[in-house]
Amino acid sequence: MAEYSSILLENAVEELSKLPGIGKKTALRLALHLLSEETCETEKLANALLKMKHNIMLCQRCYNISDEKTCAICSNPHRDENTLCVVADMRDVLAIECTVSFNGLYHVLGGVISPIDGIGPNDLRIAELVRRTQTETINEIILALPATIEGDTTNYYIYKQLSEYKGKITVISKGIAVGDALEYVDEVTLGRSILNRTVFTQK
Amino acid sequence: MAEYSSILLENAVEELSKLPGIGKKTALRLALHLLSEETCETEKLANALLKMKHNIMLCQRCYNISDEKTCAICSNPHRDENTLCVVADMRDVLAIECTVSFNGLYHVLGGVISPIDGIGPNDLRIAELVRRTQTETINEIILALPATIEGDTTNYYIYKQLSEYKGKITVISKGIAVGDALEYVDEVTLGRSILNRTVFTQK
Repeated sequence: MAEYSSILLENAVEELSKLPGIGKKTALRLALHLLSEETCETEKLANALLKMKHNIMLCQRCYNISDEKTCAICSNPHRDENTLCVVADMRDVLAIECTVSFNGLYHVLGGVISPIDGIGPNDLRIAELVRRTQTETINEIILALPATIEGDTTNYYIYKQLSEYKGKITVISKGIAVGDALEYVDEVTLGRSILNRTVFTQK
Repeated sequence: MAEYSSILLENAVEELSKLPGIGKKTALRLALHLLSEETCETEKLANALLKMKHNIMLCQRCYNISDEKTCAICSNPHRDENTLCVVADMRDVLAIECTVSFNGLYHVLGGVISPIDGIGPNDLRIAELVRRTQTETINEIILALPATIEGDTTNYYIYKQLSEYKGKITVISKGIAVGDALEYVDEVTLGRSILNRTVFTQK
């Protein structure tokens, strides 16, 4: 790497290149861009990052990230309080919100059971989920965890923990993706999608 | 775009996505990465950016970015003070430093003459270059400006301005890039590289 003429620039590049997917070259481009912009642009960026990091908290009800004690989804009166979607991560909340297909509330576990990563059931918010089924009126719990061994294990564990829960427990469907050509789908997915076939309905 | 559950996150994503080559999705990934890291990581990043923006200055001699009044290159006693490389931009200094092929000093113009962008000769540090040829002992001035119409115009303008300068004025060579297959080189470059052919020497 070339000798930078400025340690300040070097530090900024160093910090930027710690971000995922940002290499030294991209970091340098970003730093030089900030240098060429107005000072207030860099201040706005730095302040937005600091404010986010210092002030963001987890919603007391669903454990999604939030600016208040209760997040915007949980406090929205237009959402269906009786349906709960259980997800591993706050990213999954955003992904499901993008689909505009779900109008209920969420419960963010904070991961899935994964002994190899040292994550056991007690590291996740499963007890909190059980408590919600006791204190809230929930008609359906949708398990929307990743389609991995760990996700399946967590689904099963949650199912066992919810033995006293009287409502419906469902799981999101697995199968071939919309737009997929059959020849390129992996055999496990294709096999399962045949086993889990649904009745064809004319629309 | 999905409704974020946090305005703070939204602001951070907004600011990050103003950076060149960073879209909303990448910005979100970066913001969530910072949220999952220690607070000190975000603070280090924000401080590095602010410090860079607030404290960086231009070298009084070559106008490269610098932490001090005179940059690390200009104040390095091992560099050849008698050879000056004229570049458009501080990025070009880094690019040339990366080649480890040049041991002289630089002069950063701050752009090239480009009437269409409203940049005239007086917006560049050409008068400062002329002054350096009068106050410093310079044997050779290497013009390393972009190989564009604007670069050529600027080369010619500088050449005219340096009419009283007695040293050598050279320009970096243009031709096919190392590793290029002839069939993919554009015809102007290939034509010029034939016109500007050099004597073959066995190494």
